[in-house]
Amino acid sequence: MSSMPKKGQATEKRVRLSREQRLSQLLEVARRLVRDEGTDALTLPRLAEQAGVAKPVVYDHFRTRNGLLTALYQDFDARQTALIDAALEGSAPGLEEKASVIASSYVECVLAQGREIPGVLAALAGSPELETVKRDYQLDFIERCRTALAPFIGPRGVMQAGFWAMLGAADTLSNAAATGEITAQQAQDELYQTIVAMIERSNR
Amino acid sequence: MSSMPKKGQATEKRVRLSREQRLSQLLEVARRLVRDEGTDALTLPRLAEQAGVAKPVVYDHFRTRNGLLTALYQDFDARQTALIDAALEGSAPGLEEKASVIASSYVECVLAQGREIPGVLAALAGSPELETVKRDYQLDFIERCRTALAPFIGPRGVMQAGFWAMLGAADTLSNAAATGEITAQQAQDELYQTIVAMIERSNR
Repeated sequence: MSSMPKKGQATEKRVRLSREQRLSQLLEVARRLVRDEGTDALTLPRLAEQAGVAKPVVYDHFRTRNGLLTALYQDFDARQTALIDAALEGSAPGLEEKASVIASSYVECVLAQGREIPGVLAALAGSPELETVKRDYQLDFIERCRTALAPFIGPRGVMQAGFWAMLGAADTLSNAAATGEITAQQAQDELYQTIVAMIERSNR
Repeated sequence: MSSMPKKGQATEKRVRLSREQRLSQLLEVARRLVRDEGTDALTLPRLAEQAGVAKPVVYDHFRTRNGLLTALYQDFDARQTALIDAALEGSAPGLEEKASVIASSYVECVLAQGREIPGVLAALAGSPELETVKRDYQLDFIERCRTALAPFIGPRGVMQAGFWAMLGAADTLSNAAATGEITAQQAQDELYQTIVAMIERSNR
């Protein structure tokens, strides 16, 4: 080591990542840990070791294990939202198209999430962190749907409760498809019907 | 003690409960423990102490802490089912009446469950015991609804997916009412609409 050339700054062989890049690397390693060894294996020291960084780096990013789990869930939500937004933007402007895109992208996202997210949610169950993040995500999803469906909502309007019912249907249908109670196609078809029926009621 | 009269059998001051009565006493004490001190305070030794029974009695009934938590959840489900059954039986025979009874009794049951059941569910989250019991309860609820609504289902029929969507709406609407996002009345109204719309679609 002492024979290495000295510069004004300590020479680092490792690439220095930006804070954002580091976060995304840590989340990637955390996801892999959960996938390969289960949620119980995911601790902050273990993550530091696996990611090849000093422990304080990990603590600085997540503070607690719940903070890390919450960040994993938020990251999943953000990717799901981006996928649904992109699908909505690329779709034709009719009600059938919008309802169909919401239904298929929601079900597909849940089916694609693998075993990681259910494990993360189970580990966070009952924590105030999860309640807050989940509620924010639900309200955000409802707003996105309201915006996409706004051109088709009739004079009777759609109450917020209508969107909660739709969200509940989306969630339960996707989970029933994930556990094999019904097929993915049945889940998507039923969710599509639910959305169209909600809009039709507002026009009667 | 030695001056007490001896009989052929040891004289017991405690009333001997049947197995069923004992179970119901233990569940009652467990519920109170969870309500007063939270789910973390509920362990098998603690339950034995609070119920004034020997530890083996408690272990014999529940085997593990998860077994006890699962029993609490099942007990809640059974009471909820009994309430909905009674309400359905006492209602007039029309579609509007049946849909209205299902909607109002589901939302009321969730609102009445207090803080105990969410805590129990959080403690069981991700366990295979919970998955099985929950799925059984959901399928049972779907069957009850299918039976109550059977006279009104039209020639197009209602797929199983339709009932999953209804169940998801019921769950999410009730929870949104419990957290104050919407009112209980809005949750009931929306669930009523969801049920009636599902039946109407089968008649088109």
